[in-house]
Amino acid sequence: MKKPHKMKAVELSYEDLTGSEEFRTATMPITREMIVAFAAQFDPQPFHLDEEAGKKSIFGGLAASGWMTAALTMRLVLEGEPRFTGGAIGLGIDSIAWPRPVRPGDHLSAVSTIVSKRLSQSKPDYGIVKLRTTATNQHAEVVQVMVASILVHRRGTASGKKGG
Amino acid sequence: MKKPHKMKAVELSYEDLTGSEEFRTATMPITREMIVAFAAQFDPQPFHLDEEAGKKSIFGGLAASGWMTAALTMRLVLEGEPRFTGGAIGLGIDSIAWPRPVRPGDHLSAVSTIVSKRLSQSKPDYGIVKLRTTATNQHAEVVQVMVASILVHRRGTASGKKGG
Repeated sequence: MKKPHKMKAVELSYEDLTGSEEFRTATMPITREMIVAFAAQFDPQPFHLDEEAGKKSIFGGLAASGWMTAALTMRLVLEGEPRFTGGAIGLGIDSIAWPRPVRPGDHLSAVSTIVSKRLSQSKPDYGIVKLRTTATNQHAEVVQVMVASILVHRRGTASGKKGG
Repeated sequence: MKKPHKMKAVELSYEDLTGSEEFRTATMPITREMIVAFAAQFDPQPFHLDEEAGKKSIFGGLAASGWMTAALTMRLVLEGEPRFTGGAIGLGIDSIAWPRPVRPGDHLSAVSTIVSKRLSQSKPDYGIVKLRTTATNQHAEVVQVMVASILVHRRGTASGKKGG
């Protein structure tokens, strides 16, 4: 995976957010081996496991499980910039769409923007931030659009710079 | 994982669905190793990787990534009964909530019910079925509720009994 060049990622607490941030990730090359290994473990359907079965399917070729796209996008977002101090705890997903599959040889990257933000009523250390994360392939074709709500630490409440 | 006893799973096409089906899965024991391995690959946050960091976090202990819960639930549903002839292609997710985390030693299982079904306008071989899948632990506590839309083959359109 192509890493960002900076030595230390910019970290933001809830109070730092203006709402106009763009969270950008690095780019991850996707291999046939990754697709098949994930499918074998979590989504063992023929069109995720085998090129020939993929060709006969609606995908027209080997296609990554949508859950792999979602999980790898999570990884990319966590390692992208800026980051949230103390990590990002998923409260839930508002929606995920997979307009086209991820395929072997694709290069996956994502951009997140803030849909809304508010303080948590029940958890005084946190704000709740709704993010729209759009993942694309190397042709700038959208492979996933996700809207998710996460808990973001308020300033000074994370127990460590990297810790939860 | 505890397997169902039947030799051959019941498979349903779109036309077979009455709307009142319950799709039940086997039960999968969740280990610390599974939680840490998934987190290291896809969601490397301290509270998903390390017991001590988990204790200091909002989870109060090591907690599985929600994406692991989602991916394992997919696996369980695929291997549960009844099944859909030719597999289940995810069109998108309407919502996922994670009311509590999955922890080491938990036993995960799920039940799906049909929220709605209709023929696809653009894909004549398929119906679109919206499923609500509720995953629980061994204490019958809900760990995930997902509503998702999948493509289900119409009768006679799957290229093979198992193929897409």
